[in-house]
Amino acid sequence: MPERLGPPRETPLFDRVALVGLGLIGSSIARAVRHLNLARTLVAIDGNEAVVARVRELGIADEATADVAAGVKDADFVILCVPVGACGAVAEAMKAGLKPGCIVSDVGSVKASVIAQVQPHLPKGVQFVPAHPVAGTEHSGPDAGFATLFFNRWCILTPPDGTDEAATERVRDFWQAMGSKVEVMTAQHHDLVLAITSHVPHLIAYNIVGTAADLETVTQSEVIKFSAGGFRDFTRIAASDPTMWRDVFLHNKEAVLEMLGRLNEDIALLARAIRWGEGDKLHDLFTRTRAIRRGIISEGQETAEPDFGRRREGQ
Amino acid sequence: MPERLGPPRETPLFDRVALVGLGLIGSSIARAVRHLNLARTLVAIDGNEAVVARVRELGIADEATADVAAGVKDADFVILCVPVGACGAVAEAMKAGLKPGCIVSDVGSVKASVIAQVQPHLPKGVQFVPAHPVAGTEHSGPDAGFATLFFNRWCILTPPDGTDEAATERVRDFWQAMGSKVEVMTAQHHDLVLAITSHVPHLIAYNIVGTAADLETVTQSEVIKFSAGGFRDFTRIAASDPTMWRDVFLHNKEAVLEMLGRLNEDIALLARAIRWGEGDKLHDLFTRTRAIRRGIISEGQETAEPDFGRRREGQ
Ligand SMILES: NC(=O)c1ccc[n+]([C@@H]2O[C@H](COP(=O)([O-])OP(=O)(O)OC[C@H]3O[C@@H](n4cnc5c(N)ncnc54)[C@H](OP(=O)(O)O)[C@@H]3O)[C@@H](O)[C@H]2O)c1
Ligand SMILES: NC(=O)c1ccc[n+]([C@@H]2O[C@H](COP(=O)([O-])OP(=O)(O)OC[C@H]3O[C@@H](n4cnc5c(N)ncnc54)[C@H](OP(=O)(O)O)[C@@H]3O)[C@@H](O)[C@H]2O)c1
Repeated sequence: MPERLGPPRETPLFDRVALVGLGLIGSSIARAVRHLNLARTLVAIDGNEAVVARVRELGIADEATADVAAGVKDADFVILCVPVGACGAVAEAMKAGLKPGCIVSDVGSVKASVIAQVQPHLPKGVQFVPAHPVAGTEHSGPDAGFATLFFNRWCILTPPDGTDEAATERVRDFWQAMGSKVEVMTAQHHDLVLAITSHVPHLIAYNIVGTAADLETVTQSEVIKFSAGGFRDFTRIAASDPTMWRDVFLHNKEAVLEMLGRLNEDIALLARAIRWGEGDKLHDLFTRTRAIRRGIISEGQETAEPDFGRRREGQ
Repeated sequence: MPERLGPPRETPLFDRVALVGLGLIGSSIARAVRHLNLARTLVAIDGNEAVVARVRELGIADEATADVAAGVKDADFVILCVPVGACGAVAEAMKAGLKPGCIVSDVGSVKASVIAQVQPHLPKGVQFVPAHPVAGTEHSGPDAGFATLFFNRWCILTPPDGTDEAATERVRDFWQAMGSKVEVMTAQHHDLVLAITSHVPHLIAYNIVGTAADLETVTQSEVIKFSAGGFRDFTRIAASDPTMWRDVFLHNKEAVLEMLGRLNEDIALLARAIRWGEGDKLHDLFTRTRAIRRGIISEGQETAEPDFGRRREGQ
């Protein structure tokens, strides 16, 4: 798989890169950085000692520590890969160690809140370029990562007003080196876009799986057996990390509630069409929605194979 | 792939099997019947002349015709594989051709309505054993089918009161021969179970994709680019056949509206938890829902690979 990333660079992009949080995203970055030679030295920092130990075993960083302030010392690029709600605390813990000229970034799924949490803690002379790679799986932890996770996926940068252009360009180069396509937008717009393309779909999936588990008229065993009709797709999304997703909803409250409101209006119309037997309205909607999938497939963000090309267990 | 189905039978299960509707499901049955030698003669019937011609080209049946009454003549097993809303018309069209002792079945995703539509047309001496294979993809038409579609999937039989036990057993044997696991329940219970495991998930997916397409604050191009965060899973479901799904909702109205009501209650609670920052409530739900996915994977209804083992285009 890694060969799709191309050969390692002759000269690293950064001298000393520190990653805080070695879960799915952090450990994927670590693997890609290693594979592509993007850092002369790669430091892995995680609050969880078990994760630090596992990172050492996996050999995906040059140094590994649980001490944030010590870990970021002398780094010229620091990336926070912790749940969105932990970014403020990490920024505070590391501020003493940051050297002037250092670029700080993150990978949080919400951007305005992360900026509000992190920026007040950063010393003068440190640039903050928030980022969000739109890529992931339902798994988490340092074993779940892989070097090609970001390949052919979008990464959104949301530099606050006043950010040094050169810093933004270096972060762009970093993500492009890992195979990502980069787009720049405001944090506010990011949070609105991701509310509909990611946050609300997750909320809906968690909700439907939760509702199904609580029914009295249909047993859990029936839900499980007959899930191949569509439901099981939702369970994949609803198996994602609870802490990460709790933080996303708490930190992107307004946009999520706004999009949920829109969805509720539309579902009320659909329910009405069903109640009154308005088949044409249903057929129209069901026809329109196919175009969006075709767009996603032709943009290379999805496989064209039926059923995601899913392989079956037990076959 | 077909070798998983095991070797062809020495003696066919039925003499003459007629399939009405050669789309995804009908053409998958045709391929499996052929491969496993479940019928001495297989007749393909479809109202669409283009489909009849394509079935001839594909060579997946012994005879192919657009004439329902002629096609079912002398068949000892007839399976309706047309959209749920078309079952009454097909039953009426074929009744003159049905021979005594014939077993009629179907594959409709809704059962009570199909029974109400079909039974009044069946001559005395003909047994009706409704079936629903809980298996499918988002594609349709005769080219979309494949012989292993039903392998390791559940098929639900809903024989109405008074159905001959022997007929039910023959239909069970037929589905088991194609690799399915068979369960018998009432049509009413089936319609409730499938409302939550299939129909409402489809409705929600169509709804969210429709809402996303209509937003003014987020462009369609942004929705497409940044869909990898969760949304694109919904677009797969929302790319399913519009006619089939229109019919499902029109014919399973009560159960769908009931389940939708439950979902709405739960989503209101979730929205409230987000509004008031009740992180524990969110975390609890997000933890509970993982158990259901584990159940589905250990029951062999889903792959354990991250991201459905999805292969990426353009990589
Ligand atoms: N997963 C995705 O699909 C995805 C996609 C794009 C962006 N993101 C974003 O990426 C970030 C990380 O997500 P992930 O999926 O990689 O999470 P993850 O697999 O759960 O890993 C997070 C890691 O951070 C550690 N950590 C938590 N709080 C910390 C703190 N205060 N100080 C130091 N380390 C801490 C965790 O330790 P413990 O083991 O003790 O928790 C864990 O090792 C989140 O902000 C998320 O929004 C995720
Ligand atoms: N797709 C799934 O995932 C799935 C799963 C389980 C059960 N089912 C059930 O299986 C049935 C068929 O679904 P499918 O996905 O196989 O549909 P499909 O691919 O759209 O095929 C349906 C076929 O029936 C033909 N047809 C429609 N009305 C007819 C009529 N009055 N007389 C004769 N032929 C007619 C259609 O012709 P045209 O080309 O002219 O429309 C088409 O060739 C539905 O009842 C559905 O609820 C579907």
